[in-house]
Amino acid sequence: MSLALLLVIAAGGLAILYGAFTIQAVMSLPAGTARMKEIAAAIQEGAEAYLKTQYTTIAIAGAGVFVILLLAFGFDLVPAGGFAIGAVLSGAAGYVGMLVSVRANVRTTQAATEGLGKGLSVAFRAGAVTGMLVAGFALIGIAGYYWLLTGPLGHAPESRTVVTGLVALSLGASLISVFARLGGGIFTKGADVGGDLVGKVEAGIPEDDPRNPATIADNVGDNVGDCAGMAADLFETYVVTVAATMVLGSILYAADAAQFMLYPLAIGAVCIVASIIGTFFVRLRKGSRNIMGALYQGLVATGVLALVAIAVLTQQMFGFSDPIGGAPFTGLSLFVCGAIGLAVTGLIVWITEYYTGTAFRPVRSVAKASESGHGTNVIQGLAVSMEATALPALVIVIGIVATYNLAGLYGIATAVTTMLALAGMIVALDAFGPVTDNAGGIAEMSGLEGSVRDTTDALDAVGNTTKAVTKGYAIGSAGLGALVLFAAYTEDIKHFVAHPQEFPFFADVAVNFALSNPYVVVGLFVGGLLPFLFGSMAMQAVGRAASAVVEEVRRQFRERPGIMQGTEKPDYGRAVEMLTKAAIKQMVVPSMLPVLSPLVLYFLVGLVAGKSAALSAVGAMLMGVIVTGLFVAISMTAGGGAWDNAKKYIEDGHHGGKGSDAHKAAVTGDTVGDPYKDTAGPAVNPMIKITNIVALLLLAALSAAS
Amino acid sequence: MSLALLLVIAAGGLAILYGAFTIQAVMSLPAGTARMKEIAAAIQEGAEAYLKTQYTTIAIAGAGVFVILLLAFGFDLVPAGGFAIGAVLSGAAGYVGMLVSVRANVRTTQAATEGLGKGLSVAFRAGAVTGMLVAGFALIGIAGYYWLLTGPLGHAPESRTVVTGLVALSLGASLISVFARLGGGIFTKGADVGGDLVGKVEAGIPEDDPRNPATIADNVGDNVGDCAGMAADLFETYVVTVAATMVLGSILYAADAAQFMLYPLAIGAVCIVASIIGTFFVRLRKGSRNIMGALYQGLVATGVLALVAIAVLTQQMFGFSDPIGGAPFTGLSLFVCGAIGLAVTGLIVWITEYYTGTAFRPVRSVAKASESGHGTNVIQGLAVSMEATALPALVIVIGIVATYNLAGLYGIATAVTTMLALAGMIVALDAFGPVTDNAGGIAEMSGLEGSVRDTTDALDAVGNTTKAVTKGYAIGSAGLGALVLFAAYTEDIKHFVAHPQEFPFFADVAVNFALSNPYVVVGLFVGGLLPFLFGSMAMQAVGRAASAVVEEVRRQFRERPGIMQGTEKPDYGRAVEMLTKAAIKQMVVPSMLPVLSPLVLYFLVGLVAGKSAALSAVGAMLMGVIVTGLFVAISMTAGGGAWDNAKKYIEDGHHGGKGSDAHKAAVTGDTVGDPYKDTAGPAVNPMIKITNIVALLLLAALSAAS
Repeated sequence: MSLALLLVIAAGGLAILYGAFTIQAVMSLPAGTARMKEIAAAIQEGAEAYLKTQYTTIAIAGAGVFVILLLAFGFDLVPAGGFAIGAVLSGAAGYVGMLVSVRANVRTTQAATEGLGKGLSVAFRAGAVTGMLVAGFALIGIAGYYWLLTGPLGHAPESRTVVTGLVALSLGASLISVFARLGGGIFTKGADVGGDLVGKVEAGIPEDDPRNPATIADNVGDNVGDCAGMAADLFETYVVTVAATMVLGSILYAADAAQFMLYPLAIGAVCIVASIIGTFFVRLRKGSRNIMGALYQGLVATGVLALVAIAVLTQQMFGFSDPIGGAPFTGLSLFVCGAIGLAVTGLIVWITEYYTGTAFRPVRSVAKASESGHGTNVIQGLAVSMEATALPALVIVIGIVATYNLAGLYGIATAVTTMLALAGMIVALDAFGPVTDNAGGIAEMSGLEGSVRDTTDALDAVGNTTKAVTKGYAIGSAGLGALVLFAAYTEDIKHFVAHPQEFPFFADVAVNFALSNPYVVVGLFVGGLLPFLFGSMAMQAVGRAASAVVEEVRRQFRERPGIMQGTEKPDYGRAVEMLTKAAIKQMVVPSMLPVLSPLVLYFLVGLVAGKSAALSAVGAMLMGVIVTGLFVAISMTAGGGAWDNAKKYIEDGHHGGKGSDAHKAAVTGDTVGDPYKDTAGPAVNPMIKITNIVALLLLAALSAAS
Repeated sequence: MSLALLLVIAAGGLAILYGAFTIQAVMSLPAGTARMKEIAAAIQEGAEAYLKTQYTTIAIAGAGVFVILLLAFGFDLVPAGGFAIGAVLSGAAGYVGMLVSVRANVRTTQAATEGLGKGLSVAFRAGAVTGMLVAGFALIGIAGYYWLLTGPLGHAPESRTVVTGLVALSLGASLISVFARLGGGIFTKGADVGGDLVGKVEAGIPEDDPRNPATIADNVGDNVGDCAGMAADLFETYVVTVAATMVLGSILYAADAAQFMLYPLAIGAVCIVASIIGTFFVRLRKGSRNIMGALYQGLVATGVLALVAIAVLTQQMFGFSDPIGGAPFTGLSLFVCGAIGLAVTGLIVWITEYYTGTAFRPVRSVAKASESGHGTNVIQGLAVSMEATALPALVIVIGIVATYNLAGLYGIATAVTTMLALAGMIVALDAFGPVTDNAGGIAEMSGLEGSVRDTTDALDAVGNTTKAVTKGYAIGSAGLGALVLFAAYTEDIKHFVAHPQEFPFFADVAVNFALSNPYVVVGLFVGGLLPFLFGSMAMQAVGRAASAVVEEVRRQFRERPGIMQGTEKPDYGRAVEMLTKAAIKQMVVPSMLPVLSPLVLYFLVGLVAGKSAALSAVGAMLMGVIVTGLFVAISMTAGGGAWDNAKKYIEDGHHGGKGSDAHKAAVTGDTVGDPYKDTAGPAVNPMIKITNIVALLLLAALSAAS
């Protein structure tokens, strides 16, 4: 085991150590009054019950995939084992993060009684636990498995076994991710939409009112969707990107595979250290109320440190001025690609904030449109959502051109790896959101004085923006990461075709990825329709879950009239239980869509036109799913954020303020935006990558079977 | 001039003759009471004033393009002349159709007093005028210009001059089309949304109430948007498809160019005859109320006749069993491709009806979701809109695979040509919609008894479905047609590269359309973002126009309190005038997007990476705009139709009926669907093709300049 690999794994360990210490620090804080503890316990119980059910279902599905992998690869344990590692670690990161989150919420409420700075500190540290666990587990998972395969098991770094093992590890992470994003998303938005419809609109009671039987479910949802689901999503994006970069390095530059496979891991390692240091820069100056500024301070510090560290790392590994091994580019070029990755991150963060922040034209235009009614609010929101795709797409395009010209496909991969290497910090910013959201709910339900709620509201508003920003980042990086996966797919086929003795299945294959090949067009269309169909299924699932909540809450109001008078306690557990069932049931079919589609397309086109056409069509499908997926996902997450904040902007006293007709229209927009931004949109991200990874594994299985 | 070409032009003449006779027949019908005539006159005046302004603006833009074409092609009159012919004929078809439409509306109201069958007959015949003029003008335009170039001017059919002339003719049609679709769409939906918001929602008066100052504008909008705009759209699709098929035939099989260029024209000719005969099959049996059945009777008759006629035609031209000239397929294969085109038409019609008809799950699910509020109605509608893209995409994919395997790219082109050849009949079904819509408005405003309104309402409901069906057809065929254009682009480049002496600019060009080329990915992303950005602009334009209407109507209500009491007449003209200005102003920028994008991308990528990369990126852009455009357009038009009919379904007494909370929610969905289905969605169709045609002309200009 090389010293470098040891250091990489140590960096992952450092992240987990940071997490462990921070958990201790947060848990030692006071958890408030008995009433607060009681509410927090209800949330904890609900969240744990949900995750238990979810993970049980996923475990069953996962066991099935495990067996299929065993069969597909002739009982070789490497792919199936990699799959299991990816799945278990992804689940662990989400689960532990969620456990902390549901305990930090009440402590944040308590800290908020002492002021904004204290509240921010607790919530952010809780988020940082999830962030560091995501990055740490991910890095240890890939680097550890890579070490196991190349060290003790003695496979060459560039061997197919290692490549397939890494791809299978990615599949494990992706499968958990799509389940968690969908299941969590359906749960949280079912609770949110359903609870609001019957509580705010029908019964006229405020959000988080303890009389609403869906209110605990709503708070549970924040944790299982926005915390555990998001953690699984970014774990997945991290693992897939780093693994794809390693695979690409090993295929493109087989002679120097070890170096090119170590480089992305090393970037991950130094960025974890940068992220940990960065967390200490998140600090509110005395008297300041600029929470977003405090958070950005941490992000910028992390980015600057990462830049310096990557420069040193690259210089040490490759030197700056000479071509690296057999590659036609220098270390300096690679470093610049990394810097471009950071720049893309910064630009996407900024664009997302522009489209979802209350200070700018888009959100204000939605707020203004609310004056003329529900319909115009929705029209303007949809228009903003579609417009919001243009700039990120152009940024990605410029990133592709710049990095490709510097260092080819590996340059693109390096840029994405660098983007993702900051995941620890980015997840911290995001996981902070559900903690503050819960903290506000607990303040409301336990009847704390208004100033506490004001403090948590201020934190929560920032949480809304960071949530949108993270999603823009996750999807932007997913778009680029998927390109790397697509490149891996094409290079893989090239490799197989070039070695017909080794891989006889590919002896007579001649793929043609030219757009003038009709099977490429077929693949583009079929891939293109997946995000639309998947998004539709996800939105309908939320609608169904929300309807179930509405009926349950109506039933409780009807059968126990004491609830509305405050003399009787609603049955919070029933709503949680019902949503759990609904979410788990609804997440399965859409999750299978990206898993099965590449296989079905391969076999159908293969039947009609042979395997070359089939492999071309599947390749084009990967690109199709990226192209429409990127636009669908960005439009949904940005649009949802804009609707949410347009409502907040009106609640701040514009266009008639709370209770006005404009506000009612804005509430409609917010409701529409909920499944858009928190269920369908973010789930498109892992869905894109599953399609790609399944295709890669299909290739591996075909090559192994032959 | 060959006899065949003469017959083709004669068939076009026959269509115009049919139009002229039908105009006479419709105009000779009684136009009702003085009050009815007065209202109809107001609508006529408004529509004519609008179109005058619109065509003036288009003429200015067109003159600019004319000059640019002259300059780009070294003062060669062929491209500029073709452009002018396409533009003028497209404008003429829309204008004449609209003139008939605004005169048939009142006559339909009058006929409706005598029963459903009479009403249907007048409305359908009025629609058939527009339909036949579209098909006739289009066929005469292409066949005539082709004759002029190859006959009197003596160019060889396969010469570049002829190819460029036909492409330029398509550009003329496309430019009118995008302007007319956008301008008309903004006008009609600005009036509709704005009028409803302030009339139905604020003042609580019914639709088409004469007290609403926007009501005449609303009726004008039906004509300028749904009649003239739609006519320009289908004229464009027709011209572009037939021209692209000819171009493809001439490039792929240069030795037999004349035959392969005549074939699509001949298909157009026999289908016009079939359509004319088909119109006589639209007839309501005594006592029957199955209007849709009567219309489908005409459509099916046309389809069957067309199938037989194409079989005979193909057999006569090519024989069935031997390979045609230098091509590797037989006449029978070509005929089957045509039959597949008809089957695709049928399937898309059926799928669209499933997603937008009140008898099926999707619309009913939207209606059901309205019970729990505005938000859930919109969520479900969006979900339906996204789901509705899947089946049409699969049908198109199957069509591509089947026809390509039968007769290569030319087989795909033949299928699309056959689809479009039925345009005469399809437009008739669609143009029937605005006439009946207006007829209902006139009945309402002139205070006719309720039974008349019931009759026109029954016709109008069918009009809603046929409108959705036509849009599905137009967009499905546009998706396939654009593929043909893309094929023409790639084959064009191949041709230029293969003849470096003739086209020295292309001597050192080596395009690479493989998906692994990053510039192809860049092109796909940039192309992919265009429909989103364009759709966003169109929706915002409607929002702005509607706001202006709301303010104007509010002002009139405020300043003239007599209007609401019915003692004072509102100033209808002001609303029309204001909307005209708004629509014309707002249509220009989005229309320029597809024109300029290919040029900008070409020059930017060319600067960075040279002309081969630039030409590859532009090619990929064409595919990108098709892939996302197809999904965006289908989702918008189907979703809008579903929202509209969900409202109608509730109004029919389900889920609480008119005035219930569910109905209010459904009105919101309908409002959202308005710009979706009538402005942004249908305008994406010509937008896709303009991008493609501009790229083709760019190639032609580059080759001519060299």
